[in-house]
Amino acid sequence: MIERYSLPPMRELWTEEAKYRRWLEVELAVAQAQAELGLIPEEAARAIHERAHIDEGAIARAKEIEAEIKHDLLAFVRLLEEQVGPEGRFVHFGLTSSDVIDTAQALALRDGFTILIDELKRLMEAIKARALEHKHTVMVGRTHGGHAEPITFGLKLLGWHHELERDLERLERAREVVSYGKISGAVGTYAHLSPEVEELVCAKLGLKPAILSTQIVQRDRYAQALAALAILGAGLERIAVEIRNLARTEIAEVREGRPHGSSSMPHKQNPITCETITGLARLLRANLQAALENVALWHERDISHSSVERIILPDSFLAAHFMLRKMREVIENLVVDGERMRRNLELTRGLIFSQGVLLKLVEKGMARAAAHELLQELTAKAQRERRPFKEVLLEDERIKERLPPEELDEALSCERHLRWVEEIFARAGVLDSTGS
Amino acid sequence: MIERYSLPPMRELWTEEAKYRRWLEVELAVAQAQAELGLIPEEAARAIHERAHIDEGAIARAKEIEAEIKHDLLAFVRLLEEQVGPEGRFVHFGLTSSDVIDTAQALALRDGFTILIDELKRLMEAIKARALEHKHTVMVGRTHGGHAEPITFGLKLLGWHHELERDLERLERAREVVSYGKISGAVGTYAHLSPEVEELVCAKLGLKPAILSTQIVQRDRYAQALAALAILGAGLERIAVEIRNLARTEIAEVREGRPHGSSSMPHKQNPITCETITGLARLLRANLQAALENVALWHERDISHSSVERIILPDSFLAAHFMLRKMREVIENLVVDGERMRRNLELTRGLIFSQGVLLKLVEKGMARAAAHELLQELTAKAQRERRPFKEVLLEDERIKERLPPEELDEALSCERHLRWVEEIFARAGVLDSTGS
Amino acid sequence: MIERYSLPPMRELWTEEAKYRRWLEVELAVAQAQAELGLIPEEAARAIHERAHIDEGAIARAKEIEAEIKHDLLAFVRLLEEQVGPEGRFVHFGLTSSDVIDTAQALALRDGFTILIDELKRLMEAIKARALEHKHTVMVGRTHGGHAEPITFGLKLLGWHHELERDLERLERAREVVSYGKISGAVGTYAHLSPEVEELVCAKLGLKPAILSTQIVQRDRYAQALAALAILGAGLERIAVEIRNLARTEIAEVREGRPHGSSSMPHKQNPITCETITGLARLLRANLQAALENVALWHERDISHSSVERIILPDSFLAAHFMLRKMREVIENLVVDGERMRRNLELTRGLIFSQGVLLKLVEKGMARAAAHELLQELTAKAQRERRPFKEVLLEDERIKERLPPEELDEALSCERHLRWVEEIFARAGVLDSTGS
Amino acid sequence: MIERYSLPPMRELWTEEAKYRRWLEVELAVAQAQAELGLIPEEAARAIHERAHIDEGAIARAKEIEAEIKHDLLAFVRLLEEQVGPEGRFVHFGLTSSDVIDTAQALALRDGFTILIDELKRLMEAIKARALEHKHTVMVGRTHGGHAEPITFGLKLLGWHHELERDLERLERAREVVSYGKISGAVGTYAHLSPEVEELVCAKLGLKPAILSTQIVQRDRYAQALAALAILGAGLERIAVEIRNLARTEIAEVREGRPHGSSSMPHKQNPITCETITGLARLLRANLQAALENVALWHERDISHSSVERIILPDSFLAAHFMLRKMREVIENLVVDGERMRRNLELTRGLIFSQGVLLKLVEKGMARAAAHELLQELTAKAQRERRPFKEVLLEDERIKERLPPEELDEALSCERHLRWVEEIFARAGVLDSTGS
Repeated sequence: MIERYSLPPMRELWTEEAKYRRWLEVELAVAQAQAELGLIPEEAARAIHERAHIDEGAIARAKEIEAEIKHDLLAFVRLLEEQVGPEGRFVHFGLTSSDVIDTAQALALRDGFTILIDELKRLMEAIKARALEHKHTVMVGRTHGGHAEPITFGLKLLGWHHELERDLERLERAREVVSYGKISGAVGTYAHLSPEVEELVCAKLGLKPAILSTQIVQRDRYAQALAALAILGAGLERIAVEIRNLARTEIAEVREGRPHGSSSMPHKQNPITCETITGLARLLRANLQAALENVALWHERDISHSSVERIILPDSFLAAHFMLRKMREVIENLVVDGERMRRNLELTRGLIFSQGVLLKLVEKGMARAAAHELLQELTAKAQRERRPFKEVLLEDERIKERLPPEELDEALSCERHLRWVEEIFARAGVLDSTGS
Repeated sequence: MIERYSLPPMRELWTEEAKYRRWLEVELAVAQAQAELGLIPEEAARAIHERAHIDEGAIARAKEIEAEIKHDLLAFVRLLEEQVGPEGRFVHFGLTSSDVIDTAQALALRDGFTILIDELKRLMEAIKARALEHKHTVMVGRTHGGHAEPITFGLKLLGWHHELERDLERLERAREVVSYGKISGAVGTYAHLSPEVEELVCAKLGLKPAILSTQIVQRDRYAQALAALAILGAGLERIAVEIRNLARTEIAEVREGRPHGSSSMPHKQNPITCETITGLARLLRANLQAALENVALWHERDISHSSVERIILPDSFLAAHFMLRKMREVIENLVVDGERMRRNLELTRGLIFSQGVLLKLVEKGMARAAAHELLQELTAKAQRERRPFKEVLLEDERIKERLPPEELDEALSCERHLRWVEEIFARAGVLDSTGS
Repeated sequence: MIERYSLPPMRELWTEEAKYRRWLEVELAVAQAQAELGLIPEEAARAIHERAHIDEGAIARAKEIEAEIKHDLLAFVRLLEEQVGPEGRFVHFGLTSSDVIDTAQALALRDGFTILIDELKRLMEAIKARALEHKHTVMVGRTHGGHAEPITFGLKLLGWHHELERDLERLERAREVVSYGKISGAVGTYAHLSPEVEELVCAKLGLKPAILSTQIVQRDRYAQALAALAILGAGLERIAVEIRNLARTEIAEVREGRPHGSSSMPHKQNPITCETITGLARLLRANLQAALENVALWHERDISHSSVERIILPDSFLAAHFMLRKMREVIENLVVDGERMRRNLELTRGLIFSQGVLLKLVEKGMARAAAHELLQELTAKAQRERRPFKEVLLEDERIKERLPPEELDEALSCERHLRWVEEIFARAGVLDSTGS
Repeated sequence: MIERYSLPPMRELWTEEAKYRRWLEVELAVAQAQAELGLIPEEAARAIHERAHIDEGAIARAKEIEAEIKHDLLAFVRLLEEQVGPEGRFVHFGLTSSDVIDTAQALALRDGFTILIDELKRLMEAIKARALEHKHTVMVGRTHGGHAEPITFGLKLLGWHHELERDLERLERAREVVSYGKISGAVGTYAHLSPEVEELVCAKLGLKPAILSTQIVQRDRYAQALAALAILGAGLERIAVEIRNLARTEIAEVREGRPHGSSSMPHKQNPITCETITGLARLLRANLQAALENVALWHERDISHSSVERIILPDSFLAAHFMLRKMREVIENLVVDGERMRRNLELTRGLIFSQGVLLKLVEKGMARAAAHELLQELTAKAQRERRPFKEVLLEDERIKERLPPEELDEALSCERHLRWVEEIFARAGVLDSTGS
């Protein structure tokens, strides 16, 4: 991932140094487990533990060896052997490269999900706070881009929060599913190891043993991980697109608190952060596609997935992290114009209440189709003559003979439309600090 | 989905009639709930219940209305009104189309997943049976398309079973996440309803209330559903590709029990079922992509997802069902040639045991790199001279001075490589009927 | 593709009967060519030509045979043999199934593109007419969803037209690239045929010979075809999204001439056609993904592409055709509110001219950054105080000392911003009937 | 793109410095054009030309400014103003950021395609040379993974060459379609410029004017570019998968000349380069998906495409370049075992000639279905009894009474199957240096 969309602490997780440190962590755990089980000499494990290390010089040396032998993990093993001396021959003993690479990758993915989950929770807190703040900030609900019926801005925020709860669960499930190590050798038979080694190593690393692996951990796990990110991305895109739409010049109900100007047009304030989030969602979707193609490897493994994963794993985690962080900043700083929301709500002069009137007519015995037709006529009239819907209704004989003014008022009442808001918040379990 | 890949009972789930029946089921539940809560007259609910119905004539009439008003759900509502008479005006009372469409779709998706889960379990049973049958059928494990070290065919099958266990969980999670109804009106505010109606209706239908909806149920749920199918598809593709590879003329370790011939070449027996499964996995992946783009709808909904879902939902469920069913037939009828597996294993005359020898040398004090180099030399020699690896080893002084013949035998022993097979089966919880 | 999105004549191209007719067309051409070249007896070719035929009964019989032998093309060949009698043994002589299937598919794809190209041209004509009609209908140009600088609606339409010209070229190139037949036998060697047969057959069918085929025509051709459709779809989506945005309640500059109502809200008029087009664009993109995965088949072919193509080829062509047709209807019937465009343009009270003022200041010697800063201050002021930008500018000393009123007027002039409209139309080669 | 898959000269095209140099190139061309047209003072253009420059210090300063104002292009413009002094205010005069970004990107994409085209041509030369070398190297053709009929390895290579010719054309078309600049201002109206400026600038840069742009060049151009790369990638994947399959232990007809070993198994030689190419093809497909979603931007542009393009454009070009280069190395160094090909061909003891016998029987008057059935029986017998097909045929009365031995020999002749090889090469226009 390019620097531009890489933020700490996710950035640190995917550096080369971090990768080498994880590899070392796995090799050390293996040596220790093998010594405990009597598979390698105790003193070898001790020597490895004491002398193997990663620092700038070590990485440079590893790169040097890699340039020669063209195999990054093997170069790393040689580096450790050099560092440890004669006992170094017990480094990586009985392992295949992927025992280290995949187990270390499990650590990276697990920690990556933990970072995302933390960040997501913070975003959810931010949204929740704004939802409570705007629980009763009335605005128009829109379908097909047009005015439908009233909602509150708090409800909209609450809906995002609710979707993110599902994303949280998907991230947590994905974290679980990638937190599996494998130390089972070249074809998953523990030929030069034992299942016990795998169990011990995984326990030391805070992972679970994959139990059934080939040369590698199966890639459906990674596909699920990237699916969780792609769906999260699509959810953030939904929020971002909404904010972009509400920030349009003609709507102007919200704007990014730290908008970006234009190089050419001094008057502009653009919702660039939300546009960036929208774009990165496409990348997460795309990367998932590649991850899905990585599942059907040949036999006990082919290595076609490797090049892809070197790119899409860091890129997807970094992009998702960037999106979560930036979305939180947007939410926290979002400037909400409740006054404008109210004015926009009235743009149609009451037409948005047409369904309420329709239902009243039906209650009074009118057939649904007839009532629908009548109201299409009257809403069209109100629109054509640019007059308040209520006025048009009040003068229509067919309405008058059926609906007394107070019932009409009820049908045209914003408050009545929104009488369930408190209950919806309560059902969603989103309560403010006073518990109301 | 085309007829060719549609099998009962999944086929029946996606017929037009089934869709109308589900819509009716929802409308009836709504009327009943509304009557219970006093929102519409009891006798209206009773009339609706008694007179609304779906049969061939009803569908024809619905189509007729739809041709006129260009709205399938609205046409359906009009049909019911016609059937019910005056009380028909209380059909669909206070609802928006999507209350019915999405809630009914939840029924379809839920039932679709149930069918898939049943089918998947049957496939898993079939795989388990073959895994136990071939627990000790030795074959070569392959990486990068080349011989690596021995495995058993049972282990390979067991690995598939283990991956499918994760698919099972993903399907179950997906079923849970789509089993949500919404009866919350045009913008999710229950403006002409109440949260209680939603709860009652969902309870009647065996669903849970979405609690927070806009005009529709949020599409991250569907994206998760199609992600589960796409990952399942990729897993089935992995199995299919494996069988296709093992069925190659040169390998010939397995073949589809009911292979298809060629129109032109009478000698051919092609693994066509597995090839078809491979292809359909691409479709499942592609459809997921569209489902992910369906998440970020505008405001309280835009209808861009609708056309897509009319196609990808049935197609994905039908394809996944077809794949599961056909894969089970393949597994059950798979002809396994254990004798050929044994012969293929010996193709390299023992080279596949090179890592075992390497580790022995390391144990004896040789540096890893030196041992690796020595064995590359000796394996190359054995290959060049087409001689048994053991013979070449036995005549090499550097080997002789380090490894006594009995230790060499151990390193070259297939049985030793496979000493953990029973334990792996046990850890995976896959036991045969005698519990062994 | 489901009936809903299938329109003639594209629908007729993808019926089962049409497929059988194309297969027959190929078999007849082959028999004729083989007879001409003396590879089969003349009387055999004559008998085949006279007796082989496709009608309802024939199709039913083919289905019957297929149910038995599970191979659709082989069943078709048997049908022809039955129809022809003893000379029927020379039907399909020396061919492999794919010789017929792929060559026939080339006919379908070629004709499919021709239908699309015709439809696209009609759409372009419609857009061109509206572009000329609205060449000078001034509206605001929007970037990031916000007002930028003036454009005309005609320019917007012209831009769509220009993009569609590229789509036209892509479709024409794609038609060319799929119009290749192959009659080269099981592995592309003409083992039981000759290159001359292929050439003759292709000439008869209006195709070109693939020259180098395996068992099949290479699938990069199909990938290019579906790429052309996916890019076309994305372009139509761009138009559809634009219309949806301009049709928003708050913007209301255009609306679909035949909008769809809402089942619940009588006042609503929704741009449903454009929403449907938006959705179907996702399907075209998804199908391309599957087509790309179909390219890397094994050896001289594996059949994994076949199931995919049975679905994505008709679906993509039908969807693209539906989209083109519907988009034309939308364009032709689009209600354009030039008065509202003018009013929206003035919403910012002149702020959209800020860049013009900036450039004037720079011309007068002010540093760009300083000018930019000054104008950010003044635009913010105008916005805050809801006053015309010009008023705010006129009272600012820093402006006054640099810009005489007439130069300011020029900077704030809509006409000046749009002085190149005629030239842009002329450069694009879009002239009205009077040539102006 | 990560360093690992970045090779010169493509790597140099996508460095930050190269980007700044292109931006400068565009700004200089604009200033010069504007001076020529009298839109800015001559001496301003001269000052800009003399003083604006990119070097390490300049880039550092640009970064500094960007850190402050969060806009990379605007920071760059400020840098130039600083460098130029007072006349610097005429830098970027009347432009919008995208005038520079998109026009500069056209230069990068054009040059990127030129690099790819050169590399592709070199690959094609390499394939052609090997095709001629192996024109008559007989091997078995395979369908569905099984032996079909004989081909030559040269034919296989020739088929790849032929597909790459189409890729070459797609790349050339894509290069043409991206080689368009736009200097048309914030909404494409040339409000503060003129079409003439655009024409002059593009001429100076070797581009064509986009003629119709919004704030940006339309993204269907980029989608076509990435479609060309994705299809190319799929074609290279086809070659890579083929080589991997032919390099299997059991097939062993080819192997990568510089194979990679295994960290654990000294005997292994893995076709890792081809596996890597296989993987990267997935990435190219995925990136196309994102590029397609970038087309439907809102109005005169939204900036959601920008983040995506910063990643997928360099990544796709770098990956495609790496794949082409590596594939050429693979082809040039490919070790081809013609002897093994011949042996594999005989694995089925003649069964691969069954279609030839079938056709002879048909010629002799046997009905096709009867002949097919007879040969299925005899091929099964030969297979079961592991005897030469010819032997089994010779002893069958039904064969004997129809086919004299010399005709049988003809049907079973490899040479006869391959009699068109020279002609196929000639038709493809691939001739060796002696013209034969």
